[in-house]
Amino acid sequence: MTADRSAALTELIAALGPALSLDPTELDAARADKSGQRAADAPLAIVHARTADDVVAALRVATAHRLPVVPRGAGTGLAGGAMAGRDRLVVSTARMTRILEIDAVNQLAVVEPGVIVAELDAAAREQGLFYAPDPASRAWASIGGTIATGAGGLMCVKYGVTREAVLALDVVLADGTRERFGHRTAKGVTGLDLTALMVGSEGTLGVIVGATVRLTPVPRGETATIAAMLPSVVAAAAASSAIMASGLRPAALELIDPLSLAAIHRHLRLEAPAAGGTHLLVQCDGEQSGDDAERALAIIRAHGGDGRLTTDPADAERLLTVRRSFHPAMEATGHVLIEDVAVPRSRLAEMFAAIERISADHGVPIPTVAHAGDGNLHPNFVYTGDTVPEPVWRAAHAVFRAALALGGTLTGEHGVGVLKKRHLVEELGESQLALQRRIKAAFDPLGIMNPDAVL
Amino acid sequence: MTADRSAALTELIAALGPALSLDPTELDAARADKSGQRAADAPLAIVHARTADDVVAALRVATAHRLPVVPRGAGTGLAGGAMAGRDRLVVSTARMTRILEIDAVNQLAVVEPGVIVAELDAAAREQGLFYAPDPASRAWASIGGTIATGAGGLMCVKYGVTREAVLALDVVLADGTRERFGHRTAKGVTGLDLTALMVGSEGTLGVIVGATVRLTPVPRGETATIAAMLPSVVAAAAASSAIMASGLRPAALELIDPLSLAAIHRHLRLEAPAAGGTHLLVQCDGEQSGDDAERALAIIRAHGGDGRLTTDPADAERLLTVRRSFHPAMEATGHVLIEDVAVPRSRLAEMFAAIERISADHGVPIPTVAHAGDGNLHPNFVYTGDTVPEPVWRAAHAVFRAALALGGTLTGEHGVGVLKKRHLVEELGESQLALQRRIKAAFDPLGIMNPDAVL
Repeated sequence: MTADRSAALTELIAALGPALSLDPTELDAARADKSGQRAADAPLAIVHARTADDVVAALRVATAHRLPVVPRGAGTGLAGGAMAGRDRLVVSTARMTRILEIDAVNQLAVVEPGVIVAELDAAAREQGLFYAPDPASRAWASIGGTIATGAGGLMCVKYGVTREAVLALDVVLADGTRERFGHRTAKGVTGLDLTALMVGSEGTLGVIVGATVRLTPVPRGETATIAAMLPSVVAAAAASSAIMASGLRPAALELIDPLSLAAIHRHLRLEAPAAGGTHLLVQCDGEQSGDDAERALAIIRAHGGDGRLTTDPADAERLLTVRRSFHPAMEATGHVLIEDVAVPRSRLAEMFAAIERISADHGVPIPTVAHAGDGNLHPNFVYTGDTVPEPVWRAAHAVFRAALALGGTLTGEHGVGVLKKRHLVEELGESQLALQRRIKAAFDPLGIMNPDAVL
Repeated sequence: MTADRSAALTELIAALGPALSLDPTELDAARADKSGQRAADAPLAIVHARTADDVVAALRVATAHRLPVVPRGAGTGLAGGAMAGRDRLVVSTARMTRILEIDAVNQLAVVEPGVIVAELDAAAREQGLFYAPDPASRAWASIGGTIATGAGGLMCVKYGVTREAVLALDVVLADGTRERFGHRTAKGVTGLDLTALMVGSEGTLGVIVGATVRLTPVPRGETATIAAMLPSVVAAAAASSAIMASGLRPAALELIDPLSLAAIHRHLRLEAPAAGGTHLLVQCDGEQSGDDAERALAIIRAHGGDGRLTTDPADAERLLTVRRSFHPAMEATGHVLIEDVAVPRSRLAEMFAAIERISADHGVPIPTVAHAGDGNLHPNFVYTGDTVPEPVWRAAHAVFRAALALGGTLTGEHGVGVLKKRHLVEELGESQLALQRRIKAAFDPLGIMNPDAVL
C-alpha cells in the first residue's frame, strides 16, 4: 500500500470508527455482485454507512486522496456496477434501512437507501398502497441500488419504470456535498431534472442517501392469472404483441422460450414440454381483471395456444412457480451471464429468431425469457469456470448488435455496469459518450465515482 | 449593429436563405410569449427551421459568432422562456410540423417538434390511442415546446407528466452537433438518461428537432363528469385530497376558487355564485367510470358539497365551459401574471389559506385555480399597464415562499423561464444552482443557449 493510501485509511478510521471495515471476508464479498463475475482483487476498505453523515465523511476523505469510490447497495446488481477491485473504497448504504415515513394521503414514502424493495412494498400495502417497481430481486435488492441502476421488473408494463416512481433524492456528491434533488409534490419542473438524471446513473454521479418515492393505490378487484402454452416462440411473441396492441394493460406479461422451459421442467422434475412449446404468463389486475384476462386468453387461442385462467391467489402462486424457477434452473447448471436487451414490442419475434441464429452460429445455447409486454429480453449464457469464455462474449455481443439493428437497446433494466461497458459506444456513439462524460465531470470533476463502470 | 453581428447575419442568410427572417413584425412578435411580458428590444433575426439541418446550420453560425440563441416553439409558454431580446437569434421549430409515424402496435409516435399537441392527439385517436399530456394550451402549443418546458395539464393526475411520455429526442447542441437521446423501446437504461434531462430544460441545453413519444390506448367505457359546488375553498381542497387518498384516479380533478368563479360568472353573464362557493370538476374514465364518479360525488357530499354527474359528452362539454372560461375571464380584465406553484396534495387547503393572507397583506386580489389532484395551483395576478407592478411581484414572491414552506415547489408545469429565474436559488440553493450551471456548460460551453432563462 502506498503512503497516501495508508494516510487515507487512517483518516477514514478516525472519521468513521466502527463503520469502516477492513474484514477480509467482507472485502472479498465486495468484489462481486449477482452477475457471477468478480473483480480481480479485493477493495481497500468498506464503509458501512449508518447515516448520510458517514457517506459525507467517507467522500471527503476519498476526494482529498483521490480514492476511487464504488457505491454499493445490497449487491444484487447483474451488470457488475458494484464490483469493487484493488484500491477502491466501497461505500455501502445497505445498513441505512429505515422507512422514515409512509404518507398515505400524498401516496409517497420517504426511505433510507438500504430499505429492501419488498419490505417497502409490504409496509405500503398495510395502508392500501404498493411500491410498483418490482425487479425479480425485490426480496433482496435495496431501494438505493434499484434507483441507481434504474431497475425494472415484471409490472413495469402497466405501472412504469423506476424513474417514474422517484420523486426526490438525497445525494452526496464526490466532494461530500449533500444535495436534495426533486420534489415531494406530484409535479415540479424547477430547473434541470437531476432526480431523473440520477436514476440509472449507476453510482457514477454520487451516492444516494435518501429517496422520496411514489406509492400507488392497490387496485380494487381480484388479480386474474393465465398460464398458457403456445406452439412456438414466434406464436408467443406475436400473441404478446397482439395483447398489448389490443389496448389491454396486463400487470405482467412474461414469455419463457422452449430452451428455458425445458431447463425449468428438468429442474422441477416435471415431464419435458412439447418441442417448441413456449410459456406465456399473463396477469391482469383491477376491477376489470376477469374480462381483461378473458380477452388476453382469446388472443392466445387465436395464436394457436391455450391456457388456464385463475383468480385464486394460491392457484396463481402455483402458476407463477414456472417463471420463478427460471433463475434457479439456470444457476443449477453453471455460471450465468444474463443479457438484458430491449426491442420495440413488435420486433420481439424477430429478436427471438436472431437469438436462435446466433446460438447456432456460435455453438452456444441461449435460453431466453422476456418481459414480453415491454419487449425486454433476458438471453442467458450458461458457462463453466470462473471467467466468461470468449465464445460466450462473442455471442452476447452478437445478441446486442441484433437488438440494436431492430431499433433496440443494450440494457432495458439491469444497467451497463462493468460488463456491458465495452458495448456502450456502439449504441451512443463517440460524441454522445463524450457528452455523458462531461456531465459526469460536472458532478465529479476528479472522476472518483465508480470509475470502472459505465462511462 | 457590430461588425461581427453583421458578419453573422451574412453567414446566416447564406446558410439558410428564405428560412431566415428579418421581418420587423415577426421580430417584434418574438419578443413575447403568452406570459403577458415581452423583452425590451426585438431580436436580431429568426430562423424558421424547415428541417433539422436548418437548425444545425443556424447553431454553427451562432457558435462561431457566440450569438445568443433563443429556441422557440409555438410561443405559448407562460414563463417567458421564449422571449427574445436584443442581439438574440431566435431558432423556431414551429414550421417543422410533420407527424412522421404513428406506430399503433408499439403505441408511439415519431414527430417533428412543431406538431401541435392537439393535432398529434387527434391523429393518435384515429388509431384508438391518445397523447396523454394535455396542457390547457394544447390547441396551440407545440410538442417541442411542451417537452422543452415539461408542460403539464389536466390529465397528469391520472396519466403522468410530459417526462413520462417522452421516449427519445433528437437534439441539436449549441455547436451544431446532432444527438439522439433515448430509445424507441418501452424500457432502456443505457448510460445517463439525457432524454429525461432534456424534458423541462427550457432551451438551455439544445434545440429539440424530433421526438418519439408514447401513446396510450383510449380507455374503454364512457367518461363521467361531475361539476360540483362546495361551500368553501377549504372544503373543496379537503374533498380533493380525500378523493385522491381514497385510491380513485380521476382523469381530471380541477378546483376553481371563489374569486375566480365570480370572475367567470361575470364573464359568462351568469348569476353571481354564493359567497365562498368553490367549484370542483371531476372526470373519471375507463370501464369503472360511473362507479368511480359516484364514489367521488359521495366524498364531495361528505364535505358539504353537491354536484351533477353526466356521462353525456355534449352535457359534459357544457360543464367544462366554466373551467375553460377561466383564462378568458382573467384576460378580459387586464394583463395577467400566472403563477404555478405546487404543494403536496394534503397541503392544498393550507396553501389556499396562505394565498388569502398574502392577498390581504399586499392588497392584491389573487384568483386561483388548481389542478387539485396534483396539488398544482395557478394563482393569477391581474394588473393594468405594460409591466408587472412591484406590489404584484412582492405578492407573487410571497406566494412562492409560502409554497416552499409547505414542502412545495416554484413551478409545477410552466417552467422557470425568465420570469421566475429570480426565485430559483431560493429553492435549489447556491451549490445546486452551481451544479446545474456546470451541467449546462457540459452541453453548451460558450453559454449561448437561452442565456436569459432559468440558469
